[in-house]
Amino acid sequence: MQLSETVEWGLHACLALAMMPEGARIPAHALAEYHGLKPSYFSKAMQKLVAAGIVRSIEGRSGGLALARPADDVSVLHIVMALEDQKTLFRCTEIRQKGPCAAAPKHYTAPCNIARVMHKADAEWRRVLAETSLADLRKSAVAEPIFGVNEATQAWLSETGALRGV
Amino acid sequence: MQLSETVEWGLHACLALAMMPEGARIPAHALAEYHGLKPSYFSKAMQKLVAAGIVRSIEGRSGGLALARPADDVSVLHIVMALEDQKTLFRCTEIRQKGPCAAAPKHYTAPCNIARVMHKADAEWRRVLAETSLADLRKSAVAEPIFGVNEATQAWLSETGALRGV
Repeated sequence: MQLSETVEWGLHACLALAMMPEGARIPAHALAEYHGLKPSYFSKAMQKLVAAGIVRSIEGRSGGLALARPADDVSVLHIVMALEDQKTLFRCTEIRQKGPCAAAPKHYTAPCNIARVMHKADAEWRRVLAETSLADLRKSAVAEPIFGVNEATQAWLSETGALRGV
Repeated sequence: MQLSETVEWGLHACLALAMMPEGARIPAHALAEYHGLKPSYFSKAMQKLVAAGIVRSIEGRSGGLALARPADDVSVLHIVMALEDQKTLFRCTEIRQKGPCAAAPKHYTAPCNIARVMHKADAEWRRVLAETSLADLRKSAVAEPIFGVNEATQAWLSETGALRGV
């Protein structure tokens, strides 16, 4: 039942994209390397974010990935749902309508009481994820820097030339 | 990422157990048949509920399954967590501590801002599931009967002799 590991990757990757200067892009393999991840599986996750219109992939020699929308237009929910193929947590298969004692389908007019609880929980989970945007994550990341990481990141970007378009 | 299909099965099965008269038990294969499910995989799900102390398995000729605790002592969350092996939805692998620019572990004192949002959403999901007990589900099931199902169930129980100990 756990969310795919790509959810953690995608959220961190999008936060990294949100931290880049205006107009900058970074190749997917460099973004994977920065997070200590293997490029191939990571790239597939990035492709889902591109397909969902969250990330933009710019072609060419100075190409790479960038956010497709302003950071305050992208919620954590958008990213999670794109990576999890828009699925709900609970899937109701209406088993109350199966078995030897079930009534005719026309008698099941109200949603199942079990599905109602499960869907209500799903909705609360989504509500929390929808409340936080990439701009909020960027704000908290800037407010709580980890010792030395910003400096190491600048040095790494300069050394590798990973940041393009700036 | 979706919850196992056994979550739907287990919730309906526990509700059925909660609807039985005091002291009654029903064999796992009959409970599976009543829900139109194949017994083998269903039984494995029931075994998880037995292991979690939610369902009791009584041995012997008049044996079968029954709730191990009063219906108001069993929440939807208890059942879901037993079937999902007590896992959280989001698993944080601390990828912020990986890659070429990460700091030494001692510098990561506060939880990651991404994990905070994901864990908050998990907590809200759990809160809703914890708020509803099997007794609540029984109450709403009794209040909203489906046309003919109670009568068909009584006839089926009488015909198959599935209900024991009463």
